[in-house]
Amino acid sequence: MSTTWTSRYAQRTKSIKSSAIRELLKVTQRPEVISFAGGLPAPDVFPTERFREACCKVLETNGKSALQYGATEGYEPLREMIARHTSRYGVQANPENVLITSGSQQALDLIGKLLINPGDSVLVEAPTYLGALQAFNVYGAEYLSVPSDEDGIRTDMLEKPLRSGPKFMYVLPNFQNPGGTTLSEGRRQELVLLADRFGIPIVEDDPYGQLRYEGEHLTPLVVLDRENLRRDNGYSIGNVIYLSTFSKTLAPGLRLGWIVAPPDVIAKLVQLKQGGDLHTSTFTQIVAYEVARDNFLDEHIKVIRNVYRERRDAMLEALQEFFPPDVEWTHPKGGLFLWITLPKGMDCQKLFETALKENVAFVPGGSFYANNGEEGKRHMRLNFSYVPPGQIREGIRRLSVAVKRQLVELHPLSFVK
Amino acid sequence: MSTTWTSRYAQRTKSIKSSAIRELLKVTQRPEVISFAGGLPAPDVFPTERFREACCKVLETNGKSALQYGATEGYEPLREMIARHTSRYGVQANPENVLITSGSQQALDLIGKLLINPGDSVLVEAPTYLGALQAFNVYGAEYLSVPSDEDGIRTDMLEKPLRSGPKFMYVLPNFQNPGGTTLSEGRRQELVLLADRFGIPIVEDDPYGQLRYEGEHLTPLVVLDRENLRRDNGYSIGNVIYLSTFSKTLAPGLRLGWIVAPPDVIAKLVQLKQGGDLHTSTFTQIVAYEVARDNFLDEHIKVIRNVYRERRDAMLEALQEFFPPDVEWTHPKGGLFLWITLPKGMDCQKLFETALKENVAFVPGGSFYANNGEEGKRHMRLNFSYVPPGQIREGIRRLSVAVKRQLVELHPLSFVK
Repeated sequence: MSTTWTSRYAQRTKSIKSSAIRELLKVTQRPEVISFAGGLPAPDVFPTERFREACCKVLETNGKSALQYGATEGYEPLREMIARHTSRYGVQANPENVLITSGSQQALDLIGKLLINPGDSVLVEAPTYLGALQAFNVYGAEYLSVPSDEDGIRTDMLEKPLRSGPKFMYVLPNFQNPGGTTLSEGRRQELVLLADRFGIPIVEDDPYGQLRYEGEHLTPLVVLDRENLRRDNGYSIGNVIYLSTFSKTLAPGLRLGWIVAPPDVIAKLVQLKQGGDLHTSTFTQIVAYEVARDNFLDEHIKVIRNVYRERRDAMLEALQEFFPPDVEWTHPKGGLFLWITLPKGMDCQKLFETALKENVAFVPGGSFYANNGEEGKRHMRLNFSYVPPGQIREGIRRLSVAVKRQLVELHPLSFVK
Repeated sequence: MSTTWTSRYAQRTKSIKSSAIRELLKVTQRPEVISFAGGLPAPDVFPTERFREACCKVLETNGKSALQYGATEGYEPLREMIARHTSRYGVQANPENVLITSGSQQALDLIGKLLINPGDSVLVEAPTYLGALQAFNVYGAEYLSVPSDEDGIRTDMLEKPLRSGPKFMYVLPNFQNPGGTTLSEGRRQELVLLADRFGIPIVEDDPYGQLRYEGEHLTPLVVLDRENLRRDNGYSIGNVIYLSTFSKTLAPGLRLGWIVAPPDVIAKLVQLKQGGDLHTSTFTQIVAYEVARDNFLDEHIKVIRNVYRERRDAMLEALQEFFPPDVEWTHPKGGLFLWITLPKGMDCQKLFETALKENVAFVPGGSFYANNGEEGKRHMRLNFSYVPPGQIREGIRRLSVAVKRQLVELHPLSFVK
């Protein structure tokens, strides 16, 4: 009898697949493995002492509020701070435009809940962030995948898929996960104009925008959209829903992200969040506010940038040193990831197993494609934020051994030429 | 153009209604209002100093883990602690049976996501917890409502609705929200046998079970189910999904709840939680563990019981003193709420407005009925945990003024008799 109902719900969940990355992470946690697989910030940069002081202050002066239920929208001073920070790039954001979420993963879930009915299509980059696919899949999303290159999504290939009426476009313009690529200024303009022309909203996911190691900050889509519309009735008619998070700048263990959107969209999302988890932890919100305030966050981000720039450079140098010439990789100007393209015929899923024997790990590219894992076979995502620079070189050396081994199997005579 | 997509999503969300309670709460936050409306714990009982010590300890000794990403399942020592606590009532729970959620509201959302397809029906008590209706509505649930009385859901009225094949039954056996009633031992047995006979799982929501002010703890459904099945292949074939939370025993601002279920159900819920928010805050989980450990939680619950028992008694006495004889109320043996039944013809929605003029607030009963708000017209939910005892008497006095005023309007000659 009880098998009856377990099989009944199994049917409902046949589309649920566990995140490949999270399963892989379990294997790669052996101490001898150098892991480029996760997307973890370096724990050495967590400002633990600042957190300790903030916790003490909050619990001594404001403990009863910090431990009590709070508003679904979020802690008001934190919403104000986020609105203020967002506004410095030109968006006129007010607290009414901001909803605090339990990490930006919850933002993706709420957007899926709001916008996706079974069979609706979502336009995504190929490759794209796997966590977004996971969030949208549950609501029965189908996908229109548009290729991207070093300048981000190919806007010249957007018209046809836009004509078929996707519910929205999901893009990561800055230091994309997994590609490490950044959407160029020109393509940003085109994307926003196309969104406007076809009446298709954009979900702009920007977890890494603050972590730029070279070049100038590019204008967010949400700002271009606002300028493009040139309307004077405020923010309320925007075409872009903007997401960001404290996970890469303060600490992922807080689970604090946010959505910036027109107030009527925020109001709908608030209702969904009420039913979803009532509100995000009051305590972590107030503590994060105390940690970030008085310019600490900006100063701290400078520290992180220096640490991660060094690690990115260490990885780029090691790739140059050890990898065979027919392998290509992106040169990310920020973020946490770079993306490797191996010669045709290579299989990164198999490579993953060989690499593990060499005690090094990465994520095979297949997981990052909405429609066809085959496309990802030649690709690997490498994270450079978590492993200390000294170990990065050794990790890339080990990885190159695995790569060369598969290359030789593939073209036994390639070294004879 | 942008009106196009805003109206498009409006269609998708036509079924989303904001929680009446949360809207009411905004009005009732004026300092002169004595509010019996919310479901808030008394902030005076929050162990803020213990929290401060725990935060310091965690950040000094374990900061890098506490601020990093964590497992979706939850912090292992916390899962062990919950499994151990659950086991003392007879459930053989292991950490594999426990999923940590972002408050038990998220547990309700995940259960809806897993089990409810549009048009599926859920069997609920009438009245029932409004937050559960909110969580299930989003997934297109329909409801089979079964009346309850002082002994909880009327198990003698269950057969017919069970025959029509609801996806699951949702019940709050202890000190129900909003009724304040407790499911009797006999009916617990009947409920579990019926669930078994019809192969319909039970979702047992138990946020208040620890807060008993008189009488003996009754066996949870999850334990009866286990005993009833008398199988020796462990817990894995149970018919009951059990939910609880730290919101009423430690602090709601943490947003920490949990699900106890067979491992295969937990595995499915973990996948849904991954896509929903990756995991619950590592930091709040580790801090809660440090606060609760070494028997602190059990000792602290004794303190809360004493505080709330006094408040419940203050409310019962004041009702006796001030309310007219044709008004009835429940005598909760625990929890946070009691439930008032007014004479026929009374309208608590209107009464709410009169009461606010007297500077007292409650929640009108209509919100707690799945199918027909009319049923709730004669009912009010009163919370007795939040307002200090001294103010409870005054609040009930004010409320009695409003009640008597409507009674007189309804039966102008009633005081002549």
